[in-house]
Amino acid sequence: MYINLNDTVSNPHHVSNSLYGDINYVDKEASSTSECIFDIFKALGIKLNGEICECIATGIITDTGRFSFKNTSEKTFRVCAELSCCGVDFSSLSNYIYNKRSIESIRLLSFVLSTIKVIEGIAFVQLTQRMIKESGAGEEESEGFVNYVLAIGDIKSAVFFREKSNGEIRVSLRSKDETINVNRIASIFNGGGHSQAAGFRSFKSMKELELEILIAFQNIETKRDCSY
Amino acid sequence: MYINLNDTVSNPHHVSNSLYGDINYVDKEASSTSECIFDIFKALGIKLNGEICECIATGIITDTGRFSFKNTSEKTFRVCAELSCCGVDFSSLSNYIYNKRSIESIRLLSFVLSTIKVIEGIAFVQLTQRMIKESGAGEEESEGFVNYVLAIGDIKSAVFFREKSNGEIRVSLRSKDETINVNRIASIFNGGGHSQAAGFRSFKSMKELELEILIAFQNIETKRDCSY
Repeated sequence: MYINLNDTVSNPHHVSNSLYGDINYVDKEASSTSECIFDIFKALGIKLNGEICECIATGIITDTGRFSFKNTSEKTFRVCAELSCCGVDFSSLSNYIYNKRSIESIRLLSFVLSTIKVIEGIAFVQLTQRMIKESGAGEEESEGFVNYVLAIGDIKSAVFFREKSNGEIRVSLRSKDETINVNRIASIFNGGGHSQAAGFRSFKSMKELELEILIAFQNIETKRDCSY
Repeated sequence: MYINLNDTVSNPHHVSNSLYGDINYVDKEASSTSECIFDIFKALGIKLNGEICECIATGIITDTGRFSFKNTSEKTFRVCAELSCCGVDFSSLSNYIYNKRSIESIRLLSFVLSTIKVIEGIAFVQLTQRMIKESGAGEEESEGFVNYVLAIGDIKSAVFFREKSNGEIRVSLRSKDETINVNRIASIFNGGGHSQAAGFRSFKSMKELELEILIAFQNIETKRDCSY
């Protein structure tokens, strides 16, 4: 196989891949691009040193949500066994990736979780500029907060409102129920994303948005019912 | 191999196993008792049905903390690949185990995290009877809260105070630093446990306990320094 150095190589594992590259290597069964890269490197006979192995393992851990997403397969575990055999310390990696929160971000998490309310199986949480100031955390430290909300057993979806300093509201939508496509909700508000994770931006108030989102959820559920 | 049905079979993977059984099968390299059982069942030619495979996978997921503890090995991943091949859905299992919190327990978590403070690299959090009442959560729903605290990057240990309805304080001690043995701290207060996870009970106030625990940490650290 010869690759021209100017070629664009498209190598994602996403189902929606549009084959935009000069060379397209797409494995829709793969857990992650890292898993594909592992295969390519082996096929090309490239020696996997410790650093490469750690990078591949990092990609697999994060893209499978610590082996908890649907993309976790027999193959994923086999690749990890090989990486482990090559010296990758999965424990240290996991700790490095997930256990680096600041005390300020834990305070911010506490503020955000205190706003939680569940309406019709949808959990809503809010992050305001005031919380950021009071906690002392950076705005980017709210990354992943929505996952704490998704851990609630009885909900089907989660909505996370984040107020920016210019007053804009960033809305993250998550779905735990495979029959609820939040990308369709987001598109109503000119946003987008995936079926289980999508988002949009707005200058309306959180209260207004909450009501509009609830109606949007009701509408797509009604449509789903009709299609039976 | 013949096993008398009255035999006690000791099969843990703990280093401290005292070989108390009539038959002792101990694999100190194994991630979990489940991993040992997998080996035994295969050696005995017992057919692993879906239910057995799910039970073994559950043991491995929980005992390795979702593949993030030091006991996660190449062998662990190989066993999981086999279980996955036999039809175990690791994603569903992980969600079933970890994503079943009640909204009340999320509220309680918010209250507990709001009490966080860090003194000399030790994070302290509190759970009071009042928080339990105000959140509406059951007392047992605080299981695992201490892990949120351990996710803070800069701390070496965590102390979790839980007030019981009779006024007693349950103290959980955790260590992220392998050189700090919290079992030694717990033993000062007539408690016990493991080097990284230990605990004790007391009728003193949280404030008094906080001071005494800080002194205990300083003492074991000083002793450690002297032994060099």
